[in-house]
Amino acid sequence: MPREVHVHLLPNHFEPDALRGGIAVVIDLLRATTTIVAALAHGARCVLPCGDVETARRAAASLPVGSVLLGGERGGVRIEGFDLDNSPAAYTSERVAGKTIVFTTTNGTAALLRSREAARVLVGSLVNRRAVARAIAADDRPVHLVCAGTEGRVTAEDVVAAGAIVAELEVILGKTTSAGDTALLAKELWTAESTTGERLLSILRRSRGGSNLVELGFDRDIEFAARVDAIDLVAEYFPPTDDVRAI
Amino acid sequence: MPREVHVHLLPNHFEPDALRGGIAVVIDLLRATTTIVAALAHGARCVLPCGDVETARRAAASLPVGSVLLGGERGGVRIEGFDLDNSPAAYTSERVAGKTIVFTTTNGTAALLRSREAARVLVGSLVNRRAVARAIAADDRPVHLVCAGTEGRVTAEDVVAAGAIVAELEVILGKTTSAGDTALLAKELWTAESTTGERLLSILRRSRGGSNLVELGFDRDIEFAARVDAIDLVAEYFPPTDDVRAI
Repeated sequence: MPREVHVHLLPNHFEPDALRGGIAVVIDLLRATTTIVAALAHGARCVLPCGDVETARRAAASLPVGSVLLGGERGGVRIEGFDLDNSPAAYTSERVAGKTIVFTTTNGTAALLRSREAARVLVGSLVNRRAVARAIAADDRPVHLVCAGTEGRVTAEDVVAAGAIVAELEVILGKTTSAGDTALLAKELWTAESTTGERLLSILRRSRGGSNLVELGFDRDIEFAARVDAIDLVAEYFPPTDDVRAI
Repeated sequence: MPREVHVHLLPNHFEPDALRGGIAVVIDLLRATTTIVAALAHGARCVLPCGDVETARRAAASLPVGSVLLGGERGGVRIEGFDLDNSPAAYTSERVAGKTIVFTTTNGTAALLRSREAARVLVGSLVNRRAVARAIAADDRPVHLVCAGTEGRVTAEDVVAAGAIVAELEVILGKTTSAGDTALLAKELWTAESTTGERLLSILRRSRGGSNLVELGFDRDIEFAARVDAIDLVAEYFPPTDDVRAI
């Protein structure tokens, strides 16, 4: 029986209960999940996703001074009083090694929180695509790829990343099965775009999230997010302790 | 200002009011909207879409004997007592010329009925893609391409057809604009698939609707639906009289 792989184009396209017993992979390619993976790869102890700015400030205040950094964005830019924005390039070893990152973003953290009913929740991006696909392949639960979207709208950058993960999973497991055609759509989009790196960058720059970043001067973050398989790390969200750690 | 073009991947992805003042194009490629276009091209006087089988029977019974045919499907096959199934090939000139087709299908007619708040509702398919694109281009309202899907799930065949219409519209009008990335996704899928006719047939056969048809022995209907621009006809749904006519 082929493995069940569902792609949800938006977090509100499923009831939270539908993920129960499954393994969820949350994708907010530009930039939250790419940034979380970058932070952990650069030695952050863990990332604490928070749904809003006030919760993030309180969580940071409850931790020992010097052990914590506040990171994230509203409107794509750094939040007042926060240490870091949502740019993966900002999460260097010098800044984040050994630190807890309290993190809040507009769409990505909300998608993580909505996926917490799943038996496991992984953090997906293109930079850790192969590592995520291998972790899923080694599990045997139904897979739910959850695209974060932007303010309730489908974004191409998340869908192409979901397609990349499905394609890699099929390299490992062979054919997968799905209730609808969203996994097929995502995979076809990825296959079309991955023929050359230039086409991937082109769709990322034309996507809703990407065109916002270009306007805000964060084009380098698009290039960072497009480094397929550059980071061999699986990030898992543990709802009981509310943190994301490298496993 | 570029023209607004929105692709709705499912009819329940929008509130009916959101279409008010716009021009809707309803797409159920395999097979309802392809069949409606074929029926009108072969001389049917009009098509009356009905939400359920009983309504269809009552509508047919109220029309003069000999002037009407009952057509449609449940579970992909002909409904008991109906004259025609949902196969475009069945709607030949010999059968349908001059007739009113009372028509009910699982997804396509529901999508038409849900789109009736739009200022205009057109019936879209690949066979009449260019004709639809030209009709939209000659109008100046925001465009809503409504993919019917299958039982509440996104289907690739409707999305690729939506992409084909967006691509053709951009040939005529230049760049379009959209609130989300679904139009971009659809267009990229179409561009990827349209490189050769074989790839289009391949995605149609792998799609949810297409794989059902292959199982039911209706592969020839997939080939019919894939004849891009074969029929130069625009079909419009007129909610006041509840019928679809060639314009």
